[in-house]
Amino acid sequence: MPDFDRLLRELQACSQLADAELDRVLPRADEPPRPIHEAMRYSLFSGGKRLRPALVLMGCETCGGERSAALPAACAFEMIHTYSLVHDDLPAMDNDDFRRGRPTCHKAFDEAIAILAGDALLTHAFELLAHGLPASCAASLIAEIASAAGTSGMIGGQVADVTSERLPSDAALVEFIHRRKTAALIRQAVRTGAIIAAAPPDRVNAVSQYGEKIGLAFQIVDDILDVEGTTEQLGKTAGKDAARGKQTWPAAFGLQASHRKAGELVAQAKQALEPLGSRAEMLCLLADYIAARRS
Amino acid sequence: MPDFDRLLRELQACSQLADAELDRVLPRADEPPRPIHEAMRYSLFSGGKRLRPALVLMGCETCGGERSAALPAACAFEMIHTYSLVHDDLPAMDNDDFRRGRPTCHKAFDEAIAILAGDALLTHAFELLAHGLPASCAASLIAEIASAAGTSGMIGGQVADVTSERLPSDAALVEFIHRRKTAALIRQAVRTGAIIAAAPPDRVNAVSQYGEKIGLAFQIVDDILDVEGTTEQLGKTAGKDAARGKQTWPAAFGLQASHRKAGELVAQAKQALEPLGSRAEMLCLLADYIAARRS
Repeated sequence: MPDFDRLLRELQACSQLADAELDRVLPRADEPPRPIHEAMRYSLFSGGKRLRPALVLMGCETCGGERSAALPAACAFEMIHTYSLVHDDLPAMDNDDFRRGRPTCHKAFDEAIAILAGDALLTHAFELLAHGLPASCAASLIAEIASAAGTSGMIGGQVADVTSERLPSDAALVEFIHRRKTAALIRQAVRTGAIIAAAPPDRVNAVSQYGEKIGLAFQIVDDILDVEGTTEQLGKTAGKDAARGKQTWPAAFGLQASHRKAGELVAQAKQALEPLGSRAEMLCLLADYIAARRS
Repeated sequence: MPDFDRLLRELQACSQLADAELDRVLPRADEPPRPIHEAMRYSLFSGGKRLRPALVLMGCETCGGERSAALPAACAFEMIHTYSLVHDDLPAMDNDDFRRGRPTCHKAFDEAIAILAGDALLTHAFELLAHGLPASCAASLIAEIASAAGTSGMIGGQVADVTSERLPSDAALVEFIHRRKTAALIRQAVRTGAIIAAAPPDRVNAVSQYGEKIGLAFQIVDDILDVEGTTEQLGKTAGKDAARGKQTWPAAFGLQASHRKAGELVAQAKQALEPLGSRAEMLCLLADYIAARRS
């Protein structure tokens, strides 16, 4: 059994760093116009796992950089991730009333504020990147991150996801969706950390491959948990994917093949990091943890 | 009477440049996932005035820069403007079925695609800026543009706008809304052109002041036209602001004072450009045109 306690302490430390920085850079809740800043903070500070910020920070540290240099980018990734959740939850999209046991943004506020809060989180993420990235790589990294979040990445995956509900299960389509909707931003998070650390191209590539693999594994495990988990374990309604006719890995390939695929991806992710030696230990632990998680 | 024919030829030239570049940089409509790229193009190529791209290009040229250097930024401003219209038109916001005589994005496609198309236009705007701005000013300009589009600028104005419908008319609130919702991005457009031209700080400031003034004048004239114009002239339903109980300049100050204020702002805008001499002729014409327009 891998030493997850060490990893969890590390994730906790990353989460605290990111939370403190997010609190510092976001407009105060009482700054006018008030409801938008309340809504942005409500959605950002709702007990998320902070996986993407941790990946930026750990990617940077693994490649010999200072965590502090990667902190603004870490926060920007959480803002982009959160905006995508706020918009995904809207009635016109997945129509979810609860997330992490609390009312979703459009339930706690209203739909107009939720749309605008999502827009604002995305906009402020780019402001934070422009202010906080090292000057030497700021423009090229912003272009990469926008591409990973755009229609060839996250948004593209989301479009394919919402437009393929109730269609017959399609293996190629599931992979198209998962690579874009989830893996693109996770890959970009850890890659961004490596680039901030000024890692040489072969290390940046190794870390990017790792990110792609764990991103895909993360979404497959998400699909599996929706089938095998309980609502209590997950903090959200289990069985929703099947009820909505979503394109999922278990629906396309079966549960057993999904478990196997997640395991293979984690092994490949760790293999990609071999050139980095023992420095990559924490990222390897994280890969194992993603496969083993129950919520 | 100012020589508007010359200006209109200039605006036409800017519009053609921006359209050709937008067509070049946007993913093709048939690129998967298809509906998002169709929707982005549908909303972008719908006969807009291309005021913001023209301001970027003319701001750059007025300060001695090459138009071609400002073209990517010009397109990015039109993408940001278009995303804001697509989201503003949504049922949860202004609930508009038509814009420029055509069905709005969520009517031509659906709400989910309209939300995602807006998100994608915003995201791709930042990608375009990161690729296309001169390296020397890319990061600082991206930060400025994000700030002008965020909750202290455009989004902040939109929040105040949607949350103040049907409230008693409030002069300070109208100004708060108009400065943010409309003037912030218009100011930033012409300012961005000046910065791309590497203008000295006093010229950048002069051009920024001009932009702030014409931005506010533009919105006041918009408010006036909603009262005085016909649906035929406007290409959209006249009288909508009053029907919705919107905070407008005429509602707060009366029509006569609104006309006077628009005229004063245009005079101040032209005055701000005096240090630039005859180079600023076209921007001065544009200021006059904004006050004189009937649609």
